[in-house]
Amino acid sequence: MITIRITLAGMVMLLAGLPAIAQTDDKELLNQAQALFQPLPKDMATPQVPVTTERVALGRLLFFDPRFSIDGNVGCVTCHQPALYGTDGRPRSIGVKSRPHPRHAPSVLNAALQFVIHWRGDRVDAEDQVVQSLLLPITSGQPDETALLARVNSFPGYAPLFKSAFPADPEPVSRRNMALAIGAFERTLVTPSRFDDYLKGNVDALSAGERAGLAKFIEVGCVACHSGPGVGGGMYQKFGVMEDYWKATQSDPIDKGRADVTNDDADLYMFRVASLRNVAMTPPYFHDGSVATLPEAVKVMARVQLGVRLEDKDVGDIVSFLASLTGPLPPDFATAPVLPPGPVPPTK
Amino acid sequence: MITIRITLAGMVMLLAGLPAIAQTDDKELLNQAQALFQPLPKDMATPQVPVTTERVALGRLLFFDPRFSIDGNVGCVTCHQPALYGTDGRPRSIGVKSRPHPRHAPSVLNAALQFVIHWRGDRVDAEDQVVQSLLLPITSGQPDETALLARVNSFPGYAPLFKSAFPADPEPVSRRNMALAIGAFERTLVTPSRFDDYLKGNVDALSAGERAGLAKFIEVGCVACHSGPGVGGGMYQKFGVMEDYWKATQSDPIDKGRADVTNDDADLYMFRVASLRNVAMTPPYFHDGSVATLPEAVKVMARVQLGVRLEDKDVGDIVSFLASLTGPLPPDFATAPVLPPGPVPPTK
Repeated sequence: MITIRITLAGMVMLLAGLPAIAQTDDKELLNQAQALFQPLPKDMATPQVPVTTERVALGRLLFFDPRFSIDGNVGCVTCHQPALYGTDGRPRSIGVKSRPHPRHAPSVLNAALQFVIHWRGDRVDAEDQVVQSLLLPITSGQPDETALLARVNSFPGYAPLFKSAFPADPEPVSRRNMALAIGAFERTLVTPSRFDDYLKGNVDALSAGERAGLAKFIEVGCVACHSGPGVGGGMYQKFGVMEDYWKATQSDPIDKGRADVTNDDADLYMFRVASLRNVAMTPPYFHDGSVATLPEAVKVMARVQLGVRLEDKDVGDIVSFLASLTGPLPPDFATAPVLPPGPVPPTK
Repeated sequence: MITIRITLAGMVMLLAGLPAIAQTDDKELLNQAQALFQPLPKDMATPQVPVTTERVALGRLLFFDPRFSIDGNVGCVTCHQPALYGTDGRPRSIGVKSRPHPRHAPSVLNAALQFVIHWRGDRVDAEDQVVQSLLLPITSGQPDETALLARVNSFPGYAPLFKSAFPADPEPVSRRNMALAIGAFERTLVTPSRFDDYLKGNVDALSAGERAGLAKFIEVGCVACHSGPGVGGGMYQKFGVMEDYWKATQSDPIDKGRADVTNDDADLYMFRVASLRNVAMTPPYFHDGSVATLPEAVKVMARVQLGVRLEDKDVGDIVSFLASLTGPLPPDFATAPVLPPGPVPPTK
């Protein structure tokens, strides 16, 4: 995998040519926004990962089913709850047998759009995330693939659905196919918002206050990293460019980020830049959920990434722009499917 | 509270006058069924427990919110998941910090219809169940009411909803009001099925096989306990009338049932009779989830309660009748509401 490393300073310089925008110059602001962001796609299918109706239907069931984990009480939906906008609301997640997850669960909504998955980029894509989670000690606890698939097959309703989702596969019930199905479902979870209407040319889709926040978001330099259709999620960046991040977040322990994955000091404190889609609905913030509120998170970012102490008025404007990135929950995510019934074996 | 104790033998005698029903005698079967069962009510409100729109809306949020428990990862919805028909699919539930629950989680659907709540009747009604669960070590883990309410108030979106649901209450955010709101939501969770259409006079709402199962269900004596609108849920009964239940279920440990609540030997192995609404969707079975499948559960019941060894054909017919008790999920239960955002404090 090619690691993309662009210094923040370099990107801020690229943007330095942009003048501060008069709030009234709506057309100019829209032009700039259209150059920096894109509306969300209809779905997140790629040529490499086909998203068929049958796979999405199966993947939706698997996503909502907690019974595949060793005690039958943790599934995708545990850390990615519809009622909490695809998160669990916790600083760091809790897995099977109450095992603590070292990092905060980001929302599954629009997640497949990101260039890598997880804070440290140690998952290539949505499917890779699933295939690993299905057997890891925190998220699954199953000892091996045989045990996992035996559990799936203990619910008689599943086998025909795998067969119909993977008709050419002689062994349709497999961990790989579980991941392809769940990935297919996740690739449908896009949440277009008023910001997308704005990007398509409807200036009035955002209020004057939200547009002021957008202008400030561009002017201060947030867009150096938070750009594209996800308003982030497109690169790694060092958390703490101007000062150590933990001095602002009170993080404990101090997470070394991607350096722990690559064993390369150049990756020290590097994390994937968070997508800001639905950010107003998904506190707490950062890789360890160390900051509780969005205004505080905006202040921390400006300070440690850009060396800027924002005025309260500007924080308020940026927060109000960020709230315009909240789209309605996809109906097939908000509504639980009915799972094939079957019992979970007693806990050992 | 008055404890209702009717011997099973007495009830079977009462029913003994009923002749075995010819499967073709549809009108006669309907008459018998109408004397034994009632269609589900529109909701389960009572004069004592008002169910207002505002309380139901608030209660729905509270029901879906796991953040009130000590680690923010267990709520009503944890053991009563929409995707699993208001259960968790496990033999016995798992609470906060992976604390094991001693008994199986029955479905929350139609639950408020039952004459007492929980297997041993140690909760008077839905509201009593909630008020206790909000502070118990397994379901909540919060040390006291002050800590619980501080957590609720940490999500700013809730206070106005409590105020509007309890306008006359000077302190609307209270544990009691949480219970009244969640209870109000639960009292809307009724799941009428084809069986209700049948009871209202539409004979063809059940297939010939399902009617044969109903006739067998009456003839064998299941209706001695499983009657009324819930097809059960109306009385206590000894589990194991003809032989010790654990010999048929392989239960381990052996649960003494209501005797552990009342300290009265007359209550030894007495449990509340389960409602059979949606029973096909809610394995495993019995107070400890010791029996995995519905056909096996029907066989165990006939054997240990009635001393009858059922033929496989009769088991199949009864199971097919029981499947007609499955109604669609109530839309406000199947679909998650969006919770007021806010972070959960880090786990201590």
